[in-house]
Amino acid sequence: MSDAFRTEKDPLGPLEVPADALYGVQTLRARQNFPISGLKPLWPFVQSQVWIKKAAALTHKETGRLDAKVADAIVQAADEVLARKHDEHFVVDPYQAGAGTSHNMNANEVLANRANEILGGKRGEYKPVHPNDHVNMAQSTNDTIPTNIRLSALSQLPALVAAFEGLRDALADKGREFDHIVKAGRTHLQDAMPIRLGQEFAAYARSMDRATRRVKEAADYLRDLGIGGSAVGTGVTVEKEYPELMNKHLKAITGLELRVGEDRIQLMQSMGDAAAFSATLRGLAIDLSKIASDLRLMVMGPRTGIDEIKLPAVQPGSSIMPGKINPSIPEMVNQVCFQVMGCDTTVAIASEHGQLELNVMMPVIAHNILLSMQILTSTATVLTEKCVKGIEANEPMLAYWVERSAALATALMPHIGYAKAAELSKQSVKEGVLIRDMVKRDQLLPAEQIDEVLDLRKMTEIGVPGGAHAMVAGG
Amino acid sequence: MSDAFRTEKDPLGPLEVPADALYGVQTLRARQNFPISGLKPLWPFVQSQVWIKKAAALTHKETGRLDAKVADAIVQAADEVLARKHDEHFVVDPYQAGAGTSHNMNANEVLANRANEILGGKRGEYKPVHPNDHVNMAQSTNDTIPTNIRLSALSQLPALVAAFEGLRDALADKGREFDHIVKAGRTHLQDAMPIRLGQEFAAYARSMDRATRRVKEAADYLRDLGIGGSAVGTGVTVEKEYPELMNKHLKAITGLELRVGEDRIQLMQSMGDAAAFSATLRGLAIDLSKIASDLRLMVMGPRTGIDEIKLPAVQPGSSIMPGKINPSIPEMVNQVCFQVMGCDTTVAIASEHGQLELNVMMPVIAHNILLSMQILTSTATVLTEKCVKGIEANEPMLAYWVERSAALATALMPHIGYAKAAELSKQSVKEGVLIRDMVKRDQLLPAEQIDEVLDLRKMTEIGVPGGAHAMVAGG
Amino acid sequence: MSDAFRTEKDPLGPLEVPADALYGVQTLRARQNFPISGLKPLWPFVQSQVWIKKAAALTHKETGRLDAKVADAIVQAADEVLARKHDEHFVVDPYQAGAGTSHNMNANEVLANRANEILGGKRGEYKPVHPNDHVNMAQSTNDTIPTNIRLSALSQLPALVAAFEGLRDALADKGREFDHIVKAGRTHLQDAMPIRLGQEFAAYARSMDRATRRVKEAADYLRDLGIGGSAVGTGVTVEKEYPELMNKHLKAITGLELRVGEDRIQLMQSMGDAAAFSATLRGLAIDLSKIASDLRLMVMGPRTGIDEIKLPAVQPGSSIMPGKINPSIPEMVNQVCFQVMGCDTTVAIASEHGQLELNVMMPVIAHNILLSMQILTSTATVLTEKCVKGIEANEPMLAYWVERSAALATALMPHIGYAKAAELSKQSVKEGVLIRDMVKRDQLLPAEQIDEVLDLRKMTEIGVPGGAHAMVAGG
Amino acid sequence: MSDAFRTEKDPLGPLEVPADALYGVQTLRARQNFPISGLKPLWPFVQSQVWIKKAAALTHKETGRLDAKVADAIVQAADEVLARKHDEHFVVDPYQAGAGTSHNMNANEVLANRANEILGGKRGEYKPVHPNDHVNMAQSTNDTIPTNIRLSALSQLPALVAAFEGLRDALADKGREFDHIVKAGRTHLQDAMPIRLGQEFAAYARSMDRATRRVKEAADYLRDLGIGGSAVGTGVTVEKEYPELMNKHLKAITGLELRVGEDRIQLMQSMGDAAAFSATLRGLAIDLSKIASDLRLMVMGPRTGIDEIKLPAVQPGSSIMPGKINPSIPEMVNQVCFQVMGCDTTVAIASEHGQLELNVMMPVIAHNILLSMQILTSTATVLTEKCVKGIEANEPMLAYWVERSAALATALMPHIGYAKAAELSKQSVKEGVLIRDMVKRDQLLPAEQIDEVLDLRKMTEIGVPGGAHAMVAGG
Repeated sequence: MSDAFRTEKDPLGPLEVPADALYGVQTLRARQNFPISGLKPLWPFVQSQVWIKKAAALTHKETGRLDAKVADAIVQAADEVLARKHDEHFVVDPYQAGAGTSHNMNANEVLANRANEILGGKRGEYKPVHPNDHVNMAQSTNDTIPTNIRLSALSQLPALVAAFEGLRDALADKGREFDHIVKAGRTHLQDAMPIRLGQEFAAYARSMDRATRRVKEAADYLRDLGIGGSAVGTGVTVEKEYPELMNKHLKAITGLELRVGEDRIQLMQSMGDAAAFSATLRGLAIDLSKIASDLRLMVMGPRTGIDEIKLPAVQPGSSIMPGKINPSIPEMVNQVCFQVMGCDTTVAIASEHGQLELNVMMPVIAHNILLSMQILTSTATVLTEKCVKGIEANEPMLAYWVERSAALATALMPHIGYAKAAELSKQSVKEGVLIRDMVKRDQLLPAEQIDEVLDLRKMTEIGVPGGAHAMVAGG
Repeated sequence: MSDAFRTEKDPLGPLEVPADALYGVQTLRARQNFPISGLKPLWPFVQSQVWIKKAAALTHKETGRLDAKVADAIVQAADEVLARKHDEHFVVDPYQAGAGTSHNMNANEVLANRANEILGGKRGEYKPVHPNDHVNMAQSTNDTIPTNIRLSALSQLPALVAAFEGLRDALADKGREFDHIVKAGRTHLQDAMPIRLGQEFAAYARSMDRATRRVKEAADYLRDLGIGGSAVGTGVTVEKEYPELMNKHLKAITGLELRVGEDRIQLMQSMGDAAAFSATLRGLAIDLSKIASDLRLMVMGPRTGIDEIKLPAVQPGSSIMPGKINPSIPEMVNQVCFQVMGCDTTVAIASEHGQLELNVMMPVIAHNILLSMQILTSTATVLTEKCVKGIEANEPMLAYWVERSAALATALMPHIGYAKAAELSKQSVKEGVLIRDMVKRDQLLPAEQIDEVLDLRKMTEIGVPGGAHAMVAGG
Repeated sequence: MSDAFRTEKDPLGPLEVPADALYGVQTLRARQNFPISGLKPLWPFVQSQVWIKKAAALTHKETGRLDAKVADAIVQAADEVLARKHDEHFVVDPYQAGAGTSHNMNANEVLANRANEILGGKRGEYKPVHPNDHVNMAQSTNDTIPTNIRLSALSQLPALVAAFEGLRDALADKGREFDHIVKAGRTHLQDAMPIRLGQEFAAYARSMDRATRRVKEAADYLRDLGIGGSAVGTGVTVEKEYPELMNKHLKAITGLELRVGEDRIQLMQSMGDAAAFSATLRGLAIDLSKIASDLRLMVMGPRTGIDEIKLPAVQPGSSIMPGKINPSIPEMVNQVCFQVMGCDTTVAIASEHGQLELNVMMPVIAHNILLSMQILTSTATVLTEKCVKGIEANEPMLAYWVERSAALATALMPHIGYAKAAELSKQSVKEGVLIRDMVKRDQLLPAEQIDEVLDLRKMTEIGVPGGAHAMVAGG
Repeated sequence: MSDAFRTEKDPLGPLEVPADALYGVQTLRARQNFPISGLKPLWPFVQSQVWIKKAAALTHKETGRLDAKVADAIVQAADEVLARKHDEHFVVDPYQAGAGTSHNMNANEVLANRANEILGGKRGEYKPVHPNDHVNMAQSTNDTIPTNIRLSALSQLPALVAAFEGLRDALADKGREFDHIVKAGRTHLQDAMPIRLGQEFAAYARSMDRATRRVKEAADYLRDLGIGGSAVGTGVTVEKEYPELMNKHLKAITGLELRVGEDRIQLMQSMGDAAAFSATLRGLAIDLSKIASDLRLMVMGPRTGIDEIKLPAVQPGSSIMPGKINPSIPEMVNQVCFQVMGCDTTVAIASEHGQLELNVMMPVIAHNILLSMQILTSTATVLTEKCVKGIEANEPMLAYWVERSAALATALMPHIGYAKAAELSKQSVKEGVLIRDMVKRDQLLPAEQIDEVLDLRKMTEIGVPGGAHAMVAGG
């Protein structure tokens, strides 16, 4: 064997580990066992596992269960990983051993090897720091990975929330900017009563706000940690004070609001909190996708559609027509939303597959939640910065359409009666004449009253055109 | 034409309506247009639409917009429907016109016809009460159906919550009843450290509790009503005081906590609240299905499986073997959960398909949410009453398995070291001898210490067997 | 006890069965155990179960295992059920005991009671015909229900295929009718090169054709029957000639093409064929929904959208505007498609949950497949008859839009170069002038060449406007 | 600006492109616009796009539309990419512009820059080879990306099929190896009639076979190429002979069986073929997941479960117990299957979102299909090699369980009658005595007949124990 490798052993026998690898034999087995996607673990999944290891070392140092020198070395090794110095040593495929044993061992081995180096030892010797006995002390894959999922999601939450609140604010800004612009409302994609472009954007902002609030509420359930449950949730081999101490240290390390969970057995066996959180990501996707689809509808054109708004040009839409600027950003948004809906399906199915004390499907749950969070966050930011902020109203077209709308006849009902208004609407469609022009042409209202009755802006507010005795009906 | 029919007209022409039908021509068109599933509308969907009609009549009476006599007749007609006297006149297929126009018109026509009868008129004449002008006054399909979805779900919420809290309590009772019973823990379906049967059931109870809390929280978003938005959410043709008055009357009629929504446009165009609510029903299903699967695993047997619990016999499982009692109730539970997951997919996809001012997919959203609520509610009740309450522990078998578990070697680690404990575990599996017996046989511990170290009950609590200097590691 | 009931016993004890019920004690238990949805079994699920019972009676008569008189009575009873004379006696909720034991027993009991009546006996006495010993002879829930799923789906296939081939033909007819009408193509909902309305409809027809072919191909897998597998697929208690005889009789009874399956164990434990069939129903839904959405886009208007086609008015879209005709049929189509996608999710999840010899989730699989088939069939028919056949092209609008399209500049490229064409396109959008008019105005082409180069019809066929030396590029 | 960058322009203005990038300004815009996931395009998606470019160059060379020197340079550049020499220049995020414009431009730019270098030019100058005019000649994103999806999937098909046929064969081998081993059948996870372990594995093999056949059949639809449709499917700007020539060259380049599609418009606007193909991948996942779950059930133990089989140990399952070997491979398999089910949901939702001439959601469809194929292929291989081939039967345990089964009483029915057999079964469960032993003890059968009647092996074959007059019934 060349110098490029060192020999390590585990209960299954010896294996040649790359000499410069911080990981060890068990991680190597996982690499060999799971050459599935070629993907690396997402960073939050690494970070959280190392957070837990660091907190455990600090906890055990505090209780004296772990030698201070060993504990300090583990903490220092952890800090290096957290500073992104050893990313290349986290190598287990997202599709891996049930429960994430391999990912846990990857963290244990990297930290043990690095801690030993810090203490003057060598990689692969696991002395004085042992991956299982010391780095993993009082822990189990079965309580660290559920805790990891919670920490990982919470760690990515601020960026997600910031991105969506940024989007919400940009939409709300557009709501104010466009508040004066009356446009044709459309329901069933058919002529309906006027609305203001600003009202539409303000509504988009509120949809984002509600969906984001739900994510935060679902995240609150994630703050209950089951760490200390060890192998089956009961906490066997774990000191009584460990859960509280872990909570203290994890809060300090992560800056997150966290709680000692009420029932570590429940928090281990149920992925309900994770699935519910994933569902709120889907919720973001559902409302976001609707908004993206609306933008694509409104920008339909430039010459063969309703052409109500202009999106910023971010790239040529076609090599043939410089004028052709596709709504590339909203189209990407839709696709990301559909991806998130698919990831959520995976999470839901996997969450349903718990058995007795454990749900071994945790790695795929973690991966899909974190992927969804990542792509939603970047998508919301891109949509905000490269699209929403630069949206312009095409006021002439907006005015053109609303004036054409056959639905305006509704406003005349109180004054000329249902039957005549109906006839007017029909004629408008048939002849292609504006309602307003027909009213003038046929002198259906006194000249001075026409603009008052057909006041488009007023039609966009609550109120009965013509007063309370007017007949009113539905859509 | 025979006496069996009356002729009614709408803008598309005349149609022969069954003479005794309380519905009218527009409903009949819907029946002809949508012979899709043959299903009737679910009752809450009818009830809520009629609640809205009644509240609107009371509101318009209060503002004087509607003649008191007409309003009273509508209210009386509504009360008859709400007393289930006219179920057979609500006939529009769940798969129907976008937005639910046909369902809305069905309610308008039934109430108008019945109100006219109350006032001495005849069916089909629509005088003095007109379905659109009076029953539907100031309303639109577009604000009543989203409001309906909210009211319908909220109306079914107490029963759902009661059923799941009942299930939770029954599981918690079993948790207490079985608290003394130590059993083999299993992770990856493999031998793991002991746990108490009561701890498992207590965890199930907490899973149900958390999932139910989420449903209630999601329901809170449904309390924001957009009624008064009329055709496009702006409230055109609606009096300013209408939303507040509607809220007052709807609260009185339904007994529900309700709020005037902040943004009626948003509440019309986004189905986000409905999709999020549906996701919490899916959440119930995910955790519930896991519990049902666990019961089926634990009851595996009677002779060829682990046979740890006994479910009440509810029906013969096979005509061949009287002894064969299948876990029929939990199996039904799984199936209902999968149905709910499918319904939720439908809701999610439909919710994403809003366009501009409206999401016309509301009828299919309503139907799937209400179906899910119905089957979840009855399922939780059946599971509680016909299964959980009667579950018995098979204590001899539970004791048998836990004593056999190779995982017990873990408890010896602090005393005999990792290597020897490991060897012991291996031997136990290989020879099929109990860990306890090997310890005795090989005098690995002083006789008086054996029972203390292998105290199964203690292993089910947090703590380090043998104290803090013990080596500990993961699962 | 009153005359209204009779007492029956099963291994769990006595129960009061309604005296006039053809079902018996085990069915009654199922009613009590599964008050879940209140839904009746879908007819094909009843029919197929009874087909199997009839075929089994004929088979056993042929082999002499069953007394001819008993067999004949069972056959006669089965024929009555198949003639829809006893629908009300099939009462087990779709959400029921795993595997469908209750549904199977429902069929066994109804046929036994009716056969005994035919032979002069009384309901509830089960002499000389016993539900288990005779009606269910050599059968198990475990082989009859998988067989039922196959027969049920196949029995509904001709209607489904006919409906979709009818839709395909109606679309193809429109393809021919509209073949002369050039319209603006749109990609990304943006101006693109011209296409003919007829080409679009012809493409829709082909999409339906391909999706329908796939359903038929997936159905072919369903023709492999596992009947004769009895309790675990091995065929214990079943005569060797039974599978072939059952196949012969089932083919004769149902008129379906069927085969004796190669591996009855595989056909029992795997729901792969059912899930794959369901996926092709989803395939129909995916393409169908896209078509429905396109129709709704093209009909967008009447005054505030592109208004390219007119759908037949099937019902008033709003009580306010007689002119407002919503695309109610396509909207219903979308909703049905989303339901089918949800049902397919249920089928997929349930199909994944097989365990060892059996997948007990069969009842929910059967229900969702049959519901999807039913609503897809009726939907395709309604779409064909009430919408597609009556679609009219709005030729003036179609001509208006295509002439406006900025994409037409592409056709000038070979003649005036890329740069100038690009400039022209930009100007067209900016000034709102037609490409054709600008060419004339600025004399960019000889007058006699303009119509040739801007020949819209030619642009809808494969070929290079201006010949092979033209520069060409992408969209 | 440093030498590290070169300036390129597009219609939106100038941009600094890394000097050594083979891609150009439009790709760079896409990088800036779509910093979504950080993922690179999957290789088959790159390969297929370049195959198309190469085929187009060869086609245009053949027709003379493209200068031979230019065509040759493009072909040479393409061959370099296909030899994996330029992977790092394909940089567009999977979540990108609708339709995949950016990916197409990435390919166009890389090939143009490399072709120019080959011809002595420089990167960024696009002379004499222009990305749009020459590399993309007669092509559009809109016809190349749908074609790409087809080619990509087909290119990965042989590996997928080989992996699953390998799995099938390994399962079938185990079927033969275990054919002599009788075990307890279980339905509803409850005692059922005996089956042979080999029968179970043979059934798994057949499930894989059927599911794989379906994938191949669905792939056949992918062989219809719409290349030549150009911007909207009509083929404008494309020479009439182009589709046939492209087909010829693509077949030669790829070695795939391909066909000129019948309707290029349909093949552009519908993603039905892709969604149907994805559904068959889901089909693989559904059956595969069931098999993995079964292996995990059967290996349940080693001491606290049924322990019927032994999986090869691939890695330590826990750091505590050397004896603890988790079923890590099957657990990974389940997770991959759930991922595939989620990817399929994304594909289904995206496929439904076509609009008029195009479905802009193609990039996310491509990514999910290719990801599913990749992880399914590697998973099937790993399962075969690291698990199935090494599975061993635990014959003593298998014999133990089957002998215990209460279901064996069934075999006695023909001899001692239903009632007595039933009683026997009950007693067996109650007393925990073997059926066989009770028969002996109570002398229920002549001694010499016992082994014949309770011949377990015979019970695993079709046939009536005791002959045709025996009473038989269901499960």
